[in-house]
Order: sequence, then structure tokens, then C-alpha cells
Amino acid sequence: MKALRYVAVGQAPEVVDIPIPKPGPGQVLLKVTAAGVCHSDDYVMNLPEKDYLEQSYPLPLTLGHEGAGIVHELGEGVDSTLKVGDAVAVYGPWGCGRCHNCSMGMENYCTNAAAEGIRPPGLGSQGSMAEYMIVDNARHLVPLGDLDPVQNVSLTDAGLTPYHAIKRSLPKLGAGTFAVVIGTGGLGHVGIQILKALSGATVIALDVNDEKLKLATHVGADHVLISDASAADKIRELTGGLGANAVFDFVGANPTMALAQSVAALDSDVTVVGIGGGAMTIGFGTIAYDAAVRVPYWGSRSELIEVLDLARAGKINVEVQTYSLSDGPKAYEDLAANSIRGRAVIVP
Amino acid sequence: MKALRYVAVGQAPEVVDIPIPKPGPGQVLLKVTAAGVCHSDDYVMNLPEKDYLEQSYPLPLTLGHEGAGIVHELGEGVDSTLKVGDAVAVYGPWGCGRCHNCSMGMENYCTNAAAEGIRPPGLGSQGSMAEYMIVDNARHLVPLGDLDPVQNVSLTDAGLTPYHAIKRSLPKLGAGTFAVVIGTGGLGHVGIQILKALSGATVIALDVNDEKLKLATHVGADHVLISDASAADKIRELTGGLGANAVFDFVGANPTMALAQSVAALDSDVTVVGIGGGAMTIGFGTIAYDAAVRVPYWGSRSELIEVLDLARAGKINVEVQTYSLSDGPKAYEDLAANSIRGRAVIVP
Amino acid sequence: MKALRYVAVGQAPEVVDIPIPKPGPGQVLLKVTAAGVCHSDDYVMNLPEKDYLEQSYPLPLTLGHEGAGIVHELGEGVDSTLKVGDAVAVYGPWGCGRCHNCSMGMENYCTNAAAEGIRPPGLGSQGSMAEYMIVDNARHLVPLGDLDPVQNVSLTDAGLTPYHAIKRSLPKLGAGTFAVVIGTGGLGHVGIQILKALSGATVIALDVNDEKLKLATHVGADHVLISDASAADKIRELTGGLGANAVFDFVGANPTMALAQSVAALDSDVTVVGIGGGAMTIGFGTIAYDAAVRVPYWGSRSELIEVLDLARAGKINVEVQTYSLSDGPKAYEDLAANSIRGRAVIVP
Amino acid sequence: MKALRYVAVGQAPEVVDIPIPKPGPGQVLLKVTAAGVCHSDDYVMNLPEKDYLEQSYPLPLTLGHEGAGIVHELGEGVDSTLKVGDAVAVYGPWGCGRCHNCSMGMENYCTNAAAEGIRPPGLGSQGSMAEYMIVDNARHLVPLGDLDPVQNVSLTDAGLTPYHAIKRSLPKLGAGTFAVVIGTGGLGHVGIQILKALSGATVIALDVNDEKLKLATHVGADHVLISDASAADKIRELTGGLGANAVFDFVGANPTMALAQSVAALDSDVTVVGIGGGAMTIGFGTIAYDAAVRVPYWGSRSELIEVLDLARAGKINVEVQTYSLSDGPKAYEDLAANSIRGRAVIVP
Repeated sequence: MKALRYVAVGQAPEVVDIPIPKPGPGQVLLKVTAAGVCHSDDYVMNLPEKDYLEQSYPLPLTLGHEGAGIVHELGEGVDSTLKVGDAVAVYGPWGCGRCHNCSMGMENYCTNAAAEGIRPPGLGSQGSMAEYMIVDNARHLVPLGDLDPVQNVSLTDAGLTPYHAIKRSLPKLGAGTFAVVIGTGGLGHVGIQILKALSGATVIALDVNDEKLKLATHVGADHVLISDASAADKIRELTGGLGANAVFDFVGANPTMALAQSVAALDSDVTVVGIGGGAMTIGFGTIAYDAAVRVPYWGSRSELIEVLDLARAGKINVEVQTYSLSDGPKAYEDLAANSIRGRAVIVP
Repeated sequence: MKALRYVAVGQAPEVVDIPIPKPGPGQVLLKVTAAGVCHSDDYVMNLPEKDYLEQSYPLPLTLGHEGAGIVHELGEGVDSTLKVGDAVAVYGPWGCGRCHNCSMGMENYCTNAAAEGIRPPGLGSQGSMAEYMIVDNARHLVPLGDLDPVQNVSLTDAGLTPYHAIKRSLPKLGAGTFAVVIGTGGLGHVGIQILKALSGATVIALDVNDEKLKLATHVGADHVLISDASAADKIRELTGGLGANAVFDFVGANPTMALAQSVAALDSDVTVVGIGGGAMTIGFGTIAYDAAVRVPYWGSRSELIEVLDLARAGKINVEVQTYSLSDGPKAYEDLAANSIRGRAVIVP
Repeated sequence: MKALRYVAVGQAPEVVDIPIPKPGPGQVLLKVTAAGVCHSDDYVMNLPEKDYLEQSYPLPLTLGHEGAGIVHELGEGVDSTLKVGDAVAVYGPWGCGRCHNCSMGMENYCTNAAAEGIRPPGLGSQGSMAEYMIVDNARHLVPLGDLDPVQNVSLTDAGLTPYHAIKRSLPKLGAGTFAVVIGTGGLGHVGIQILKALSGATVIALDVNDEKLKLATHVGADHVLISDASAADKIRELTGGLGANAVFDFVGANPTMALAQSVAALDSDVTVVGIGGGAMTIGFGTIAYDAAVRVPYWGSRSELIEVLDLARAGKINVEVQTYSLSDGPKAYEDLAANSIRGRAVIVP
Repeated sequence: MKALRYVAVGQAPEVVDIPIPKPGPGQVLLKVTAAGVCHSDDYVMNLPEKDYLEQSYPLPLTLGHEGAGIVHELGEGVDSTLKVGDAVAVYGPWGCGRCHNCSMGMENYCTNAAAEGIRPPGLGSQGSMAEYMIVDNARHLVPLGDLDPVQNVSLTDAGLTPYHAIKRSLPKLGAGTFAVVIGTGGLGHVGIQILKALSGATVIALDVNDEKLKLATHVGADHVLISDASAADKIRELTGGLGANAVFDFVGANPTMALAQSVAALDSDVTVVGIGGGAMTIGFGTIAYDAAVRVPYWGSRSELIEVLDLARAGKINVEVQTYSLSDGPKAYEDLAANSIRGRAVIVP
């Protein structure tokens, strides 16, 4: 089968031919219908060799931590309610399934995964950018039903990650509140829709150019602002001087984090989702009282079910640009050039 | 001044002429701009004489627990930030201001009010259906700002009461959930709008005739159903067999409460807001596990601020039929005849 | 092997000889080390034949929904981190593992179990009162570690059930609050300890005789009261006239439920855990405003992990009376005679 | 009357003679029974002249933001339920009483106070370290009842501040959890007691010498550690490698904040209470996922009521060293020398 793989540190990913894998006991083989392209892949492929190896990433590594497919073959002992032919999405942050966090479906915060060498597909295990992929356990498959896999595969990360971040802030986003979304790309443009669907907040979206902001407006942002030096003052004005009740930074670079910190209201949430290499300096006097600063990671299995429910209800819709598996390397080039509107998806 | 008063048990309310009252220390005199008509007034006026007197209602009683006005005169010692001419809404469930609940602005659950004889305006104290009214403490006044008093006076009860009920259920009304609203009149038609503005729930509204359901659809209900013997089955079908995550019964009669109880999902909320004289029998096997049944009362001061914020943002809009003070008795006749669309408001 | 089975409707359970079962794919065979005796078993064995069969209980039925054991044999495809020889407790409320509730480990509220015929051990599936038992999936096993199985097996229900009920009320049981526990037997005496370990509440415990109340005092109740006609007044006095912030009724009969209803404070929780055939009439004026009435069922997998953590920390301790498997029928006689102090446990 | 005042920037505070003030409309004059000494006073007195004046602190400034007293005289319009002779504690973080936060009693987060020049006593308004003090509004007085004012005055800050911080983390401090308290002085030794009274957490307390740790053990810490370079490893070991579910840093210097950051578990809370001039660098990879970092300020009025309830129930007890008003300057010297066990209290 064809697979898009990272074969050597520092090289661009390549399409290679490898054998179709066989599912072991408890495993499931999927015929992949769609695989999403993510900045995190870039983050990993840009790690220096030393860090890449220290963090135990394998070579070659089939990319793709967003995946959807059709159940193709069940390994021994797999729960018989799952059937060959079922359309499924892959819950990516695989954990042990036994620890306290995993017992609540929060495998993204598994406390055994590192010690046991459990890695998400595409981020340590072999990923979804291939004609077939192995899923380690049937519990990591969530029914897609009638949802189109290409349109919705990105919900497994670009939907789930903002959803998790936003869900935690919903108690602070009732009537008369404001949410700020920084970065309106792959994750941000879904985040805006989630905020509009589930909260009472007025949504203020920021990005670096008008083209990006058009998408923000299109998906429901109440206000859009260029993310420049005047943005903090404008947010303060829009919020009656009080600042935002929640800020979601989908960029995570120093300037966006500084902005997030400066516009957070008393008793607000500041959530840094983007892995842009930035940092904030938090201490007495540097941020509003009781503003809670967090750096979350992905989301839980029940949250993925909820995200797919939102899509089913027509409340979120991912803007998608599709690529064939052979054109996979091109998708990463476009991503690096920041020229993708919404999310890139590879269709094998 | 003219006032609409309940003068004798069992008689219809009358418009009478009485002196304009003087504000005592700490009190505020309002020139009334609007006063809402409510089923609770009827409930009180229908109490048998024995109950009326035992519950210490005074005679005569100026009606009106929904009030808005202009600050006309300040008693001694009133906080100077309140100014003559300010447009305000009256927070009605007056409490002691000192107990634990009052210290959080939950004066609706004051634990001293009964012992200290503190009563809401129109429901024990002299109410808003007059040209002027006394408000016992400046903290019971919430700025209206630019909000039209006639359009919005009902938010102080018909807005605040469903808001309080719904706010408590928001954690159960995220993605993929269903809310049922029974009764789409004065409170219910506002409740539907609050649910749409603040939750991710699909809203199913029920009432007894198509006319009522038109209003429900107009204000945003996703599904409307006649509240008859087949309603429970239809709700179960709409909810994929799981039932509703929250049911709000704005009628509170035996049949509506039976319906509420029967369509509640596992781990849902069943909130009975209407004072229709009904009851539910709750025990093992009579209701879904962990469905929480509650009978709330009005709301807190911070919740009233939030409701007015929703109105300011254009997210809730009360359907209003206006009456002059002289026509006040007619308003209660129309209410009893169930012929009011939305809420009746008296404009002095 | 020996097993304690309910063999015919209306007959007392019997010890019989049956073959040791074989674990199928995904299943686990345990050598049972302890099995708890519960009022629910009595409830099931007292069902009229019609109800018993309609509810699809099998005959014969090996009793025991509280179980602990040693992993004896793994079926095919079972996750290899579970090893023969591991000491485990059985999470009893088995569900599908896939639905939204199950994805959070709340298998007690599985929405597919009924349709798929999934039943808890001892309550539909063959239970723990045997030398060996089949557990349908490795995820239903929680490590016991060094915890003594006989002392702690009851935590899987008599610990988990009150824990789940109490955990939901913890936000209402902070500083200056009161919790009432009605019934200080198998579940209640554990409930008292959980309340003392996790909440700030002053605990008032009630039962019908001094012997029962001695156990309540022994496990930490701050006040104990005979559950008679004067109890409501005494609770009101102890709580400064405000009533209790949470009431847990581990009996669930009409008189205890009436008591629970009458002593609930404004904005409190009333949780009926016991299956004593009682009911409450809930409506406007019959209970304090916003008191939330619930009938929960068992608990989640993460909650069982937490209960075992409490035991490990020495914060809860079950009073246990042990019986051999052969004496199992005697345990049910003693239970019916209400003569067990704490919980009866069968040790095969 | 005598008053302890900060009279010139950079000078030690002095005892001076000034007239007894008169309460204006709505104000209350207290005869002071006790006034607590706090590090925050030092923080203010150590501000450079420029900052002191820019932050609009007055000169002279009577110190003391922890106060208790007897109602001595009521200004006009004060609610008549407050009576001369009542024993009260002063709720210190005065706000406007009208904004959304104030409407919930969270005057510590008043959004109008700065603009309206409302300042806490001792931190802008004239404070409690005098024979008499003015309280600006009766709502800022909480009944002390039988509580000894000297023993309990510090609860208005040294109790309320940790209480507020801890209350927000209680949902994360259930069964099987760990809380770390850094700094076991005035606030920390109360924080330990609050954690033991209200949470299920195992409490690990840290300070710089054995003398301090003796107090920590005395008030209930489960483990005590010297706060040195090995502390992080020891905490990790005590917590089974997972880190702490909540860390409360009552010092707030760079080393303690670094420690707090490094031992925070996944999905934990890190709360910096102490104003020690430190800061943390927060970004991807610098702290556990979803650990929420916050810098809170004081607490709400309802929380003060709850803290006093805890004291009344015997669950918290402040270690107190008393000083006369004349010895007030000495109290600040001892505080600076870090030689006070618990909290210093001035008794006029």
C-alpha cells in the first residue's frame, strides 16, 4: 500500500510503498478514507535529530493523527459489536485504558502511556496517511455514521482540541460575556463555531490578515480584528473595559500570548492551544486576578462523541482542502506557506 | 396617585386613588414606567381568605412584582451613586441582605425574610402597579440604561425565573443534548430564547394549541408539539430514545408534570417552574436514574443583571401586550382567559 | 465448583455444584476471594415470578454483584497488561463500553445495556458467589493491590453506591453545612465515613435503634438520632432552623423519604439510595425551593478507583461479618432479620 | 484616640493621637477589638515613593485591613437590624456593591472600585489599627457572635484569602488526591487546616526550617518537607510520580513558584497567593497539561461567612501572637524578621 512517511530527520515526508499490516489480538485494521494534515506534524518533523530520537519517535513514521476509515479486519478478541464495513473516526490520544484518567475516557491525560510506550497514531505509532492503518484497540473507534469522512476527519483533532479547551471555559461564558479567539486557521475557525453553538459569549476573532478574518466572519465571529499592536485596546473597548472572559490562543507565539494575557478579565480563562513556541510570565500584577492560565492537550473520548454530534446537528463545519496521498508532501508545503483555508485533508 | 389594588379577598382588583408615598431612610421612590402582570398574582388573589391571611398578605395590596421606573427621590443614607432620573428595573425577591444566601445576591432564598417580615413588592409589600412605588433598598435596583422599560420590565420575573432555572441546567445542555419546554406563554417563550442563546440543546416546545406553538416557533424552538397523550412518545423519538437532558415545566399541573417525569433522560434535570397545583411521585423506578427534580423560585440579583445583558445583546425579546393602569383589571381578565400572547404589561 | 444460586422463584438460594466456566475471547476468569451480600439480591429474589421473568433474570442465577478475586485465566485478545495472579475488584455495573456514558466510565448509565442484554454479575449475569467467576471484559477489573479482598469487596457496591451519591453533593457540603444520613447499615455506615473524609459537613445519622446508632457514632457521625416522629424537629434544631444541605436516604421507605423531604434545606440535595419501596410527592410547596431530588444507581469506574483510594488511605473501613460459601444461605437469613452489623461477605 | 499609622514613605509606622472619626450617612463606627498584621502592609510600606503615590495611597495611612470590633455608632440610613453593641468582623475588600461581581458578594473583584476610588481599610482607606474605625457600609460587617475577636480577626484575610484559593480547587481535591502548601506562616497554617476540613487531599506542607514545619504538623499536615532542592523529587515520590492535584504557594517568590510549577499534576491547580515578587514562565512544555495557574486576591463576603463557620465548628484555629497598639511597630519588626509563629494581632 502507499503511505506518506517521515523517513529521515530533516527531510520532507515521502510517499512510499509498504505492506498492508495485519491486526494483532484486540487490534483493528481500517481502510483509511481520510487523514488530516496538522501543524503538530510539522512541529515533530522540525525537531532536531537529538530531540526527535530522545522523544523516541520512530523512523520511518507514517504521518497522520487525524484519521477516518472503514473497518476492514478485526484482530482476535475484538468486541463483536464492531463490524467489518463500519465507518469510524479514530480517537487519537491513545492511553492505557486502565488509569484513573483513562477510566473517564481522558486518554489524552493517561498517566501510564509514556512508561508503557503507548503513542498516538502519526505521533509515534504508525498513522493514518496510508491506505490502511492499525488501530490498537476498538475503544479508540467512534462511529461516524452518515458523516462524510473527508469533511469531518479533522474533527478528531482540529475539532476535538478546541472543543476540549472551550468546554472547560463554558461556565465562564454565559450571558453578557466575551470570548477572544486568536488565530482563525484549522483549529480556530472550528473553535469560533463551537463557541457560537454552545456559549452565550460574543466572539472576537483575531488573525494577521483580512483573508483569514473573512473565514472568521464566515463561520460566525461577532467581531474580527487584525492582530496588531492596537488589538488589545480594541478588545478592551469592545468589552466595556473589562476584558475577555475567555481567551483561546490557537497560535501560541510570544506576541499572541502577550495579547492573551493583557486582555484577560478578572476571573477569566486563558487557554494556550497553539504550539508556537511562546511563553507568558505569570505572577502578581502581570495578569488579572484569578485569570486561569492553561495549556491543554487534545481531548477525551466523550468529547469526540460530542464534537461529532455537533457536526451531525450542522453546528460545525470544517473548511477543507483535499489532496491525494501522492500529493501529501504538497499539503505540508502549503501548510508551511500558511496558504490553506481551514484544514488540509488527504484522501487515499 | 392611581394604584391597582387587591382590596378584599375574592374580589377583582380595583384602580383606586392613594397618596404618593415618601421614601424612608435607605429607601428609594420610583416613578413607575412599567409593571408586569403575572400568573402568581392570580395565584395569590385566588387564595381562600384563611390562607391569604395566614400567609400575612396585607389588604389592600397594590399588585405588581415586576417593576421598572425612574428614580424620583432618595431616602436618607442612600448610596449617592444612585441618582434621581436613573432608569432602573426592580429586583423583586427582597431579602435581608445579610444572610449567607443574600451575601451572594440570592435574596430569593433569604433565610431571614420570613422571620423579619420582608416581602416582595406586589406579593406582600406594596407593588409596582401604581404611578409611584417604594423600593426598600437601593441594592434592589438594577440599571436599565437604554433598555425600553415596557418591553423589558417582564424580564424581572418572566425573564429571571426561567433564566435561573435554565442556568442551573446549562452543564447538562452541551453538544448533542435536548431540552423540553412545556408551556410557551409568558415565561416559556422567554425560556426558549434563553436556551437558544446559552446552550447547545435542541429545544422541543410543547403547548396545548397551535396558536401557542406559533409563538414558540417564532422565538426559536427547534421542534414544537401539541402537549397531548402522544407527546411523550414523540419526544422519545426526537431524542433517539434517550429522553431529554432537561425538562422545564412552566405549567406545573399534574399532566405536565407526569409528562416531564416520563421523558427525563438518565442524569437529567426536571425543573418545575409553573405553579399549577400539580405533583410528581418520585421513587425508585418512577423516574430515570439521577434525574434531579427541583422546584425553584425566582432568581438572584446577578442573574437579573445577566438577563438584562441578554436583552441588551438582542438575544431575548419579550412579546408584550400593554394596558393602561385604568385597564389593569382587564389585563387580569385576559390572563385568566389565557388569551395573552407573551406577557401583559401595565403602563401607568 | 461450589456456587450460591437462586434456582427457582420464591425459593431460598442454594449451594450447588457446577463446572468451572471457561473465559471466551476478551473475557477473564477470576478465582473469587470474596463476595458481598446485598439487600438488592433480596429485592430480586422477592420479585414475583412474572416480574422476575419479564425483567429477563435467568434461572439458575449465581448471586453476587460485589466481587473480588485473583486473575486465573485470560480469554483471547485480553490486554496483556493484566496478568494471571493479579488481585482485582470487579466493577459491577457492566455496560457496552461504547455509548457516551460508557465513554466516561459511567457504565452504570449505559444506554445500550438493556437492548444488548448486558447484565451485572449476580443481577442477570452469573455472579461472584462461587469459587470462580467470569468477568466479561478486562476493563471491569480494578487493581486491589495490597487491599484485603474480604475487608474491601463491599466497596464495589456498598462503598461505590454511597460514594457516587455523595460525590454529586460535595459542592453543597462545604463549610458550615449539614448532611443527614438515614439508615446506618451496609451502605450508610460507609456513607458516613465518606462524608467525613471528603466534605466539611456536620453529619447527622439516623436509624431505628441504639445498636445501629452505635455503629454510626463509631464510624464518625457527629450527631445520632433515633429515626422517629421527633427526628425532623431535632434535625431542624441542630441545623439552626435551616435544614440539611444534603440528605441521603439509604432506606428508601415512605417514612424515611417523608423525613428526608421535610428536613431538606433551600437549594439542597435529597438523594434516595435505598430500594425500600417508598415514594415522595414533589410539587410547589411540598419541599424547599431548589432542593434537588434524585434516585441514583451504583457508580462509575473512576469512582470505584477513588473509593479504593480512600480505603488505601485508611479513610473508610467496612464493618464485615464473614460467611463461608456453604453458609451463604444463612447470610441472607441474617440480612432479612436485620441482624448484620455492617456488611456480610462470603469467602469461598 | 491612638492609631498606628504610616506617616511618610520609607519610615516605620508610628503610634499617633488623632480624633475619633464620625460616621457619615450609611457608615458605621466600630470600637476596634482586634486588628491583624499582614505581609501586605509591608508590601505597601516598601513601595518606592513614586509607586506609592501613583497607586494613590494616602499619607498618613492608618494600617490594618484585618479588623474586628463592636458597633459603636450608626450613620444615618443604616439598616436598623445592625445594633450598637454587636460584635462584628470587617469584610475588607470593599467594592461598589452594584457591579456584577459585587452583586454576588465578590467585592474583591469589583469592577468599579478603582474608578470610584473605593479602597480597603488599611490599604487606602483608614484601617483597623486604631481604637475606632469607620466602615463605609453595613454590608461589610459580618457577625462574630461568640467568636473571640483576637483569636479570629485574622480570619478576615489570613483565613479568607487561603479559603478563597482553596475553595476553587476543591473539585480537584477529592479522594486519592494530594495538595501541596508552600509556606506555613500566617496564611499557610490556616490553609492546611482548611484543606483538612474540606477536602479529601493528603496535605504536603513545605517551609524553610523545622520550626515552621512543626507548626504545619501541629495543624494537621500529613507530610512536611524542607523547601530545598530535593523537595520536588520528594513530592513526586509521595504522589506516586503524578504530582500534586493542587499547589498553593503562600510565598510567591521565584524559587517557590518554580517548585509549584514543577510538581503540578496533569489537570491540577497552581495558585499563587503570596506576594513575594516571583514569576513563572508558562507555555507548551513548561508545565503539566491543563494545570491551571492563577493569582487570586482575597475573597468574597459569603466566603468570609463560611470561614467564620469553620472557626465556630472548631475546624480552624489561628496561632496568634498579640501586641498592644503601642507595640504595633514592634509587630512589624518581628514580621520582617520572620519570627512570628502564626499571625500577629494588635489589641487596642
